[in-house]
Amino acid sequence: MALLAIGIEYQGTAYCGWQHQKHCDSVQQQLEKALSYIADEPIGLNCAGRTDTGVHAIGQVAHFETAVNRPDKAWIQGVNTRLPSDIRVTWVKMMPEDFHARFSAIARQYRYVIFNRPVHSAILANRVTWENRPLDVEKMHIAAQGLLGENDFSSFRASGCQASHANRNVQSLQVSRQGNFVFVDIQANAFLHHMVRNIVGTLMEVGRLEKPVEWVLELLKKQDRTQAGMTAPAEGLYFVNALYPESFQLPQVVLDELLWQA
Amino acid sequence: MALLAIGIEYQGTAYCGWQHQKHCDSVQQQLEKALSYIADEPIGLNCAGRTDTGVHAIGQVAHFETAVNRPDKAWIQGVNTRLPSDIRVTWVKMMPEDFHARFSAIARQYRYVIFNRPVHSAILANRVTWENRPLDVEKMHIAAQGLLGENDFSSFRASGCQASHANRNVQSLQVSRQGNFVFVDIQANAFLHHMVRNIVGTLMEVGRLEKPVEWVLELLKKQDRTQAGMTAPAEGLYFVNALYPESFQLPQVVLDELLWQA
Repeated sequence: MALLAIGIEYQGTAYCGWQHQKHCDSVQQQLEKALSYIADEPIGLNCAGRTDTGVHAIGQVAHFETAVNRPDKAWIQGVNTRLPSDIRVTWVKMMPEDFHARFSAIARQYRYVIFNRPVHSAILANRVTWENRPLDVEKMHIAAQGLLGENDFSSFRASGCQASHANRNVQSLQVSRQGNFVFVDIQANAFLHHMVRNIVGTLMEVGRLEKPVEWVLELLKKQDRTQAGMTAPAEGLYFVNALYPESFQLPQVVLDELLWQA
Repeated sequence: MALLAIGIEYQGTAYCGWQHQKHCDSVQQQLEKALSYIADEPIGLNCAGRTDTGVHAIGQVAHFETAVNRPDKAWIQGVNTRLPSDIRVTWVKMMPEDFHARFSAIARQYRYVIFNRPVHSAILANRVTWENRPLDVEKMHIAAQGLLGENDFSSFRASGCQASHANRNVQSLQVSRQGNFVFVDIQANAFLHHMVRNIVGTLMEVGRLEKPVEWVLELLKKQDRTQAGMTAPAEGLYFVNALYPESFQLPQVVLDELLWQA
């Protein structure tokens, strides 16, 4: 058996998230169907980070085992011809048998994109979160720094979250603006369910000057989800990268590589 | 009667172009329906440049006459709540009675976006044209300069084009690359049917080194559509701006604001 890793890009709008579910269409299901067709045997996938309904990915990573031997072109171009246009395999790599897309990952990067203009963008519908009130990005960034490091993120955890504990290590959290776009870039060893969206919803209250900068750190200390801001919508969230030990030599998405939008 | 101009952004994917047609959904029809609802009287629109099926717009301009008086907010936010999410009114402005969105425009700007990577983008499906073979952008740009100025563009004109003559003045034509994106930015006093897409299709043959740089100028001189390159797909084309005499003081889209780095 060979173990293969693949890079995946998808627009989450049409799917009930990554994970296979009975009564709706998932990214995993689409990929497994296409890969199984190319392999001519059933293929099951494990991914680096499951995403929710409507959440997008640029650098999702998944692995699978297969008994068949196919050229890279078959796993990339061949599979892509069997996929809907909103899902694409971007690379494939043969991996050592101790690799696991989820458990080998040492960190994950997400980007949250807010379109901050009085009128929403028609071109970017479903792919950014619209905020018509002006956001003070500097205040958001300063507030965000209170979340850095190893902390209990219970205040930013969805009620249904199934993780065994709420400790996560946020390694980097940057809020920046480019024209009408506000980006929240966050890297952590791992994330709780809705953690990015709850952090962004909270930071947006600071950005709209509804709450002071200090509020975010106070919330973190309270370890109480009922106190924090709204869960920001799924449509602005992008899974950017899963980071692995260098020895695995896996490709990574570079944020400076443009995704062109209007 | 008041004469109002509006700025419009739309994603053309779901529509059979700008213009009202009997058996399919058009951008004009959606807008007229929403505007008529807000005005509580039938509203008819004239636009700066009709776009084809699947072509997008960031800075489309249209005008209409109305007997009613409404605040700007009604014509923008009010109308937008009545529109599908892939069409948005971005501004409104009261105009003097001699203004006409089409006939007052002195130039139009289009941007054509090519995603130049071995694998297509899932996020940008339907909003860029995918080219998996590497494009030599410098050669494309040099070739493009042969099209500048007042010329007969019969070689780049759709067979069904209804314009009375084929003379157009191309004022600027830039081909540039940013990462995986190749942009063709073109400004002319006016355009023939499919003119931008035929020029881009031709330049792409040069970019793929299938034709020499000199070929484009030769084609122009031949004034024969059967000799030029393929019509590039609609999905990469954006109507960026209609330009008017400064005295009208209309808002314009700035191309530098159009980049979203993901």
